[in-house]
Amino acid sequence: MVLLEEIREISIVSASKIVMLVIDGLGGLPDAKTGRTELETAHTPYLDQLAKKGICGLIDPVSPGITPGSGPGHLALFGYDPLKFTIGRGVLEALGIGFELTKNDVAARGNFCTVDGNGLITDRRAGRITTEKCVELCKLLSQIKLEGVELFVWPVKEHRFMMTLRGKGLSAEISDTDPQRLGVAPNSAIAEGSQAKQTVRAVNNFINEASKILASHHPANMILLRGFSKLPDIPSMSEIYKLTPAAIAVYPMYKGLAKLIGMKIFNADGGIQEELKVLAGCFEKHDFFYVHVKYADSAGEDGDFSRKVKVIEEVDSALPQLLNLKPDVIVVTGDHSTPAVLKGHSWHPVPVLLYSQWCRSDNAKEFSESACITGGLGRLHATDIMPLAMANALKLTKFGA
Amino acid sequence: MVLLEEIREISIVSASKIVMLVIDGLGGLPDAKTGRTELETAHTPYLDQLAKKGICGLIDPVSPGITPGSGPGHLALFGYDPLKFTIGRGVLEALGIGFELTKNDVAARGNFCTVDGNGLITDRRAGRITTEKCVELCKLLSQIKLEGVELFVWPVKEHRFMMTLRGKGLSAEISDTDPQRLGVAPNSAIAEGSQAKQTVRAVNNFINEASKILASHHPANMILLRGFSKLPDIPSMSEIYKLTPAAIAVYPMYKGLAKLIGMKIFNADGGIQEELKVLAGCFEKHDFFYVHVKYADSAGEDGDFSRKVKVIEEVDSALPQLLNLKPDVIVVTGDHSTPAVLKGHSWHPVPVLLYSQWCRSDNAKEFSESACITGGLGRLHATDIMPLAMANALKLTKFGA
Repeated sequence: MVLLEEIREISIVSASKIVMLVIDGLGGLPDAKTGRTELETAHTPYLDQLAKKGICGLIDPVSPGITPGSGPGHLALFGYDPLKFTIGRGVLEALGIGFELTKNDVAARGNFCTVDGNGLITDRRAGRITTEKCVELCKLLSQIKLEGVELFVWPVKEHRFMMTLRGKGLSAEISDTDPQRLGVAPNSAIAEGSQAKQTVRAVNNFINEASKILASHHPANMILLRGFSKLPDIPSMSEIYKLTPAAIAVYPMYKGLAKLIGMKIFNADGGIQEELKVLAGCFEKHDFFYVHVKYADSAGEDGDFSRKVKVIEEVDSALPQLLNLKPDVIVVTGDHSTPAVLKGHSWHPVPVLLYSQWCRSDNAKEFSESACITGGLGRLHATDIMPLAMANALKLTKFGA
Repeated sequence: MVLLEEIREISIVSASKIVMLVIDGLGGLPDAKTGRTELETAHTPYLDQLAKKGICGLIDPVSPGITPGSGPGHLALFGYDPLKFTIGRGVLEALGIGFELTKNDVAARGNFCTVDGNGLITDRRAGRITTEKCVELCKLLSQIKLEGVELFVWPVKEHRFMMTLRGKGLSAEISDTDPQRLGVAPNSAIAEGSQAKQTVRAVNNFINEASKILASHHPANMILLRGFSKLPDIPSMSEIYKLTPAAIAVYPMYKGLAKLIGMKIFNADGGIQEELKVLAGCFEKHDFFYVHVKYADSAGEDGDFSRKVKVIEEVDSALPQLLNLKPDVIVVTGDHSTPAVLKGHSWHPVPVLLYSQWCRSDNAKEFSESACITGGLGRLHATDIMPLAMANALKLTKFGA
């Protein structure tokens, strides 16, 4: 694993183009009956052909045994060590709903919750109120006035919302108010750094006003806040790689993450076909393209093995559209595994395939977990993928003389 | 990747002997017609037999995707993390011409260049003057007297030279005078650290005197200096591994690098046959032998696929000479890949084979990039090779109780 600072020194601008196709939650586990994973079950002639011409391997997004969230999984693919560049929960929540954070913002993840007559928590999720109710309550809380800071309260889903304070000199060094257990009162926010006093005052004023407004809205009669955070200090892909990167994605969180590291965002609605149309439209003007396919992960999370197989097959059948653009380097991989049998993200390493004229092909004859085990890339840290893609695009000069 | 300090604690002296045969630029890429790399094309019965008896793998000298210079590539093979132990350009230039640096020296890489009547650079390489002219000008510049420091100006090749200042308390924290572009005047040297004032004065005096001397030598009427550096602070192989290491090499830079980490240098002229004779001559007195074969890299750099094949075949046919000495451990590898089709160093991992009585052999039946993919060593960081060689020589005790 090389440091970004070394890459910054040796990266150069060139005309070659890199496409990184991220099939969210790509890696899987075998179906009990067939013994084959989702990727191994899917009929994928184009991916298999690309694997045959290219070089394959397995990547660990964070570290062997560690199940990554989508944030760390993606950061690693873009070459940012997810153990070094951490994104706060509040910021992730904001990115996830498309809220445009500025450097003056402190964001927190919020829960509506239920407290009893003594103010003790009886339900940390307020009986999972509907999203409609959440929207209504957020509108009410948005009207709270705080001295010297601007307030944003945006609904997320069910009992979840995002709160952001905007103002000069705000600090995110604030303790959670969510005690993460029942039968106790919510904590007051406490300054964890000397710079956070003003922010803590604003947060506690907000909670105080919110509790008055919500008193009549049982079961959502109180709020809990956690994960106070600011935009991370993270160098852009153009600084490090000298790329002009473009992101093609549907979901806000992935667009937000991509924006965080300086990608230009291209919206796409619908599936891979639509995304590849957008790719073709912006192909001339950029040299790195992140294409995000969400639905494999969603199917895995739902435990729907055959739907995940279908999503992978859709990607495969759309692949010619991508190949027609003749990118110099193609990477196909995932940000983590989401085996349908586990109904969630998992720690299993993710299949990766890299194709370029200079990739030094291996014996992998298909794109599958088992073929990738013996692939020429071996087992890599996910942060090695960007340097490899850059090298194959002949965009890196020698390190040392 | 283990730290040198841990190795230092567990290494022991024993009678066993290790030979590390470094075929410079060994790794390659397939020829378009045959689909086989240089190593796969070469007829190498002895290497194949050794691979069959030994254990194989692929190594990344710096990190996946990173193309190493010869300095980092070699340091890694000797167990020194090239991201931690960096060698300045001036020092490398000095090593490359066999100049014996001391701890009191600051070395820089120099270019003769052309400036116009206003002192603005019009050619950073002075029209690539001949090496003869370079020798003549270096002789003139060597006569410059600087107060309190000794001056060395040695020719390298064409417009390139090495300048070294020798004296107590000199510092290398000096900015380059080479602005790396045309139409501007050369920069003055500037102290980048508080200790560098005396050195900067000497450097700028040197430049000033040099410009007077060179005024009548258009197009080489000025100089540019960069990469000011001192010998790196690097522990010797005898300190870390308790070895008495010997280096057998032809080119100055490799001898210089080997000397830097405390190897005894044995000169050899000519090819591998000659080198192995020298090896036999010093085999009794040492326990680690670095044998460097330069010409595979030279052929690769020239884009001469079949000449690289031939060099590898020469190494193979000489191998019995080496085997006859019955070293306990034999490592055959390269410091980086130099595919003839790329005409230069590349990022591709380098085949490695290790043979010892205790190596736990694998299924690799030949020494080739594709066989090494599935070798028992897997894909390793190059700095892991020395600990493995030491272990196979039974020169490492247990780590921890």
